[in-house]
Amino acid sequence: MFSSLARCASRGALQVLKGAGRCAPSPAAVPRFGHQTLAAAPLPAVGGGPGIRQARAQDRERLLQVEWDDGSCSLYPFTWLRDNCQCPRCTLQSAQARSLLLTDLDVHTGVDQVQITENNKVSITWPDQHSSEFEPDWLKKRCFSPEARQARQEELFLNERDFWDSGLQIPTLDFEEVLHDDKAALDWLMALRRVGIVYLKGAPLEQGQVARLSQRIGYLRLTFLRHTWQVQDKPMANNVAYTSGKLSLHTDYPALHHPPGVQFLHCLQQAQQGGESEAVDGFHMAELLRKDHPDAFNTLSSLRVDFTDTGSDYCDFSVQSKNHIIDVDSEGRVVRINYNNATRDSTLDLPLDQVQPFYSSLKSFVELMNQPENVFTYRMEPGDLVTFDNWRLLHGRKSYLSGSINLRHLEGAYLDWDEVMSRLRLLRKAVHGDGESLSS
Amino acid sequence: MFSSLARCASRGALQVLKGAGRCAPSPAAVPRFGHQTLAAAPLPAVGGGPGIRQARAQDRERLLQVEWDDGSCSLYPFTWLRDNCQCPRCTLQSAQARSLLLTDLDVHTGVDQVQITENNKVSITWPDQHSSEFEPDWLKKRCFSPEARQARQEELFLNERDFWDSGLQIPTLDFEEVLHDDKAALDWLMALRRVGIVYLKGAPLEQGQVARLSQRIGYLRLTFLRHTWQVQDKPMANNVAYTSGKLSLHTDYPALHHPPGVQFLHCLQQAQQGGESEAVDGFHMAELLRKDHPDAFNTLSSLRVDFTDTGSDYCDFSVQSKNHIIDVDSEGRVVRINYNNATRDSTLDLPLDQVQPFYSSLKSFVELMNQPENVFTYRMEPGDLVTFDNWRLLHGRKSYLSGSINLRHLEGAYLDWDEVMSRLRLLRKAVHGDGESLSS
Repeated sequence: MFSSLARCASRGALQVLKGAGRCAPSPAAVPRFGHQTLAAAPLPAVGGGPGIRQARAQDRERLLQVEWDDGSCSLYPFTWLRDNCQCPRCTLQSAQARSLLLTDLDVHTGVDQVQITENNKVSITWPDQHSSEFEPDWLKKRCFSPEARQARQEELFLNERDFWDSGLQIPTLDFEEVLHDDKAALDWLMALRRVGIVYLKGAPLEQGQVARLSQRIGYLRLTFLRHTWQVQDKPMANNVAYTSGKLSLHTDYPALHHPPGVQFLHCLQQAQQGGESEAVDGFHMAELLRKDHPDAFNTLSSLRVDFTDTGSDYCDFSVQSKNHIIDVDSEGRVVRINYNNATRDSTLDLPLDQVQPFYSSLKSFVELMNQPENVFTYRMEPGDLVTFDNWRLLHGRKSYLSGSINLRHLEGAYLDWDEVMSRLRLLRKAVHGDGESLSS
Repeated sequence: MFSSLARCASRGALQVLKGAGRCAPSPAAVPRFGHQTLAAAPLPAVGGGPGIRQARAQDRERLLQVEWDDGSCSLYPFTWLRDNCQCPRCTLQSAQARSLLLTDLDVHTGVDQVQITENNKVSITWPDQHSSEFEPDWLKKRCFSPEARQARQEELFLNERDFWDSGLQIPTLDFEEVLHDDKAALDWLMALRRVGIVYLKGAPLEQGQVARLSQRIGYLRLTFLRHTWQVQDKPMANNVAYTSGKLSLHTDYPALHHPPGVQFLHCLQQAQQGGESEAVDGFHMAELLRKDHPDAFNTLSSLRVDFTDTGSDYCDFSVQSKNHIIDVDSEGRVVRINYNNATRDSTLDLPLDQVQPFYSSLKSFVELMNQPENVFTYRMEPGDLVTFDNWRLLHGRKSYLSGSINLRHLEGAYLDWDEVMSRLRLLRKAVHGDGESLSS
């Protein structure tokens, strides 16, 4: 159950807290600063969770040290423990939300007493005699060591990805099975997160299937394109997608500051000639660019580009955004690609001397993503429904012959990653009880 | 019409392009690098727009220099001009979107010929004999000088804000007027953007008014709280707001990575005792923190904090996010506050040595926002509808006496800023023709 958390050890934490007490076989070996409270576990671990050998307060550092049955240690700041008291006065149980106000939190609190209860919980009495109890597995999950934090973050956000190229073996599931079986739905969303694209076969040949699939998750994301949208060759198209022309590799809707995270496309009718789909792993391309053209990567991840979209569909709209073409988080990890050449604005908010580097960098990125070894090409047939990560993939379409009969027709819908990840966590809990074993 | 763009001069641009040709009264005074094309305007400006005195190509720098009638100059990179050719082959007119592919763009293009047409447009013939025409006002709006870029960005995004404190004179409009009069609706959204909070009086005393108001803009943002939500004292509350307790100052939904930008709250029934509303200007508070506690500001704007929200409402949900409590863009400007103590997760993804600085910084910020001189307090009466910037304001509520009759009842809804700004731009165009005069 806790295999992925076995790495929860004090080593990393101690590295950042010079001079703090180290985990040792007996309390006598621990340097004592001022008053310390030591509690030894009266009983072995219950129910397969981690057992606590002992817990002691390091009053000078204001840390609680917990020594686990396997000999490893975890350190917890007093302030954090008081802040996260799980008692009914401090936590609104029905909402699983904190009711303790920050104005009532002493951020320099000490502790009065530490005990281990008969059922192996850590019990803390605070100077004002309020007391808190903490479950050992709750504590272990929240250990501050780098390894434990990384495991917890991976459990919560599943940020590990598998990169691919033109040789992708696309994960494929049955549409109805995903709708009706939790294990299939979980497999779908896990692959969608890790690979970025999943094919569902056997969807009924009528509109409304992308909406049904959205309900499997929660709800879809309404945009100015309406709740769901029909990709067809239309007269007076208000979007380059609504023509029979080639669509170069792009992400959808960078003209929004928070573009849709996930896209569904259901093929109702395919063109007789042309209309093949193309997909590229944008995160993979960004990492290749970072390696081979670091200046281009730095340019595209530091300069913000204006996007624009004006017209009328659900209602009239005049949308403007500023986005990095390669979005990188504070740890330097690529988290989103924002690129659609059709809606890239003619307003370019750059100093004159950055304009040419911008174009050269974008050209490098676009040439890279268009290399045949990077492009996965597939042809949708009626009943196929492709689901993909719109923050990661660039997708395109070859031009097609638009006739008066057999009109090519895809129906599309958007969702956001927060809602998709929410459903993934709930499915994981339903299928596996909890998610730890999947996170490592 | 172009008052705010009068600052569009070449000075700033030239500062960043050492050695480039300077705007001069006659072409003879301009250093000539290689082949240059010079075109003099055959006619004065037409229709009140800016007039072009002359346009010349600086082939070595690959820049077009435009000298305006007022003697100022603008410089435009050849690549940018070719990229933004407005002809029907390069632009899908019905979508106002670029159809020229980046793979077909020569990012090192020269020009063959520059002319000024009889109707004062700049006409460029490219080496492959494709030709492009540019309107003078279109060009002037897109001048690359710092002043012009800043004016254009302010026109597009209206980022200037008026800070306030407890003495706020809250902008107030009539609900029905906002629904039916474009000028009133524009006044509403301009004040919502600049001040961050606007009061609407006289909404009918029945549910559905926040949805009506959303339709005035476009559509509301569905969340797990449903399309609209009822703030009442509920048994087994799945949200701390659904109690009669005090709500400390917070922003809504930081457990989403993209929290709702705008919030509407319509008072249907008020408590007989208590229940007053509180609001604080979060951008103002963040700037005060940056000035008085720079370390705290740096901590809260650089560390990402986990938020969590689990329960069931529209459907079951298990939402997790990582957000900066103070979100700062790449220019250092505060763009969003993400803070709700109730949904701040017990999982705290920080190295042990950053935990105490985090709590101390948060305490400084919360103490600052709770100082009486910073808190604007108001009491909603039935028929009042408050609209506010949920990325900027922290809001709260005093506890109230919850009886069995006269149950306090607010109905709420969310929207995103992209949709609100879209409506603002369209209203501005409808009321003023265009927005330039409002942007300076």
